[in-house]
Amino acid sequence: MKTRIVTISREYGSGGRAVGQQLAARLGIACYDQALIGKIAMETGFARDYISKRGEDAPKGAWLGGVFAGKDFYGLSIQDELWSAQRKVITGLAEREPCVIVGRCADYVLRERKDLLSVFIHAPLSFRAQRAKTIYEKEANNIEDFVRKKDKKRAAFYNYFSQNKWGDARHYHLAVSSVYGVDFAVEVLKHAAESFPGGRD
Amino acid sequence: MKTRIVTISREYGSGGRAVGQQLAARLGIACYDQALIGKIAMETGFARDYISKRGEDAPKGAWLGGVFAGKDFYGLSIQDELWSAQRKVITGLAEREPCVIVGRCADYVLRERKDLLSVFIHAPLSFRAQRAKTIYEKEANNIEDFVRKKDKKRAAFYNYFSQNKWGDARHYHLAVSSVYGVDFAVEVLKHAAESFPGGRD
Repeated sequence: MKTRIVTISREYGSGGRAVGQQLAARLGIACYDQALIGKIAMETGFARDYISKRGEDAPKGAWLGGVFAGKDFYGLSIQDELWSAQRKVITGLAEREPCVIVGRCADYVLRERKDLLSVFIHAPLSFRAQRAKTIYEKEANNIEDFVRKKDKKRAAFYNYFSQNKWGDARHYHLAVSSVYGVDFAVEVLKHAAESFPGGRD
Repeated sequence: MKTRIVTISREYGSGGRAVGQQLAARLGIACYDQALIGKIAMETGFARDYISKRGEDAPKGAWLGGVFAGKDFYGLSIQDELWSAQRKVITGLAEREPCVIVGRCADYVLRERKDLLSVFIHAPLSFRAQRAKTIYEKEANNIEDFVRKKDKKRAAFYNYFSQNKWGDARHYHLAVSSVYGVDFAVEVLKHAAESFPGGRD
């Protein structure tokens, strides 16, 4: 049996999105990433750009360990509404067809499914900084700081909405470093998705 | 190219040792686990039983976040000597032949090798408690507490000697949950070891 749903959480610059796209292509299933944003936009009426920028933000203050989270009523309200819409879209997609879903806490949203393979893609900071420079043509003065900040935002979003710990191996079925290349990560995941025994207690 | 060295770090009861043994058998290479203990014993003169029990202990006090670590001079000295001997044996084994090495911070010891695939095996607590009960016939009153304490010791050992964080996906090339079965984990790792591109920056 093949797995039906693969979710990919990823460090910034690790190539996680490319892994998701190539994996989906090789498995012959859909990949929801930017396309997912469009769906959410239609669902919620939020502007596409706004969701693209804010769809993985935690509420203001969540970076500070939740001390101030919830006090910014307006921010929390918007983010919670967006979170709720994203969750609905992700649940619907997983019901409808086999697919790869990149980002947006999809692993947590779908955690009760027994046909889920949840994946975390990561790589050393220097590797990701170099990749961000080359692929995204980022020209920040301190590219490593830029990458670190991106991760901090993703971690805050994930930790806030999932109550798990972003990057802890124990929250994912598979975690793969892309330090040996995106192709290698795709190859490992393709085989995993195809060898998937299905079901668990 | 095949990877030459696979290291396996594992949560207690996750089946990590079984994964290591089956993986080595399927790859046709050696697995060092209990055998490694024997080698270390010969190397150091420590009694086999002592190393079996203490070879993955951190120095006394290390559980308390290092506050008291180093103050128990006698304990620290023995553990440091043992650590140094283990490191020497692991380095020697990796030089000598392709192999799977289970436990004992081998991933950290061999972190500079470019032919290394370092792996972390884990599973949900309830799954591991059930497995510990069945496989090891553990009859502790509270089996989950027993499993948790075992993990705490492994984490203390790893965090103390490696200065990494045990269980953080980012310290391993691959992390695999055994929740879908030991066979599935072995299958994923075998393919990864065989598809290994070799080399990295």
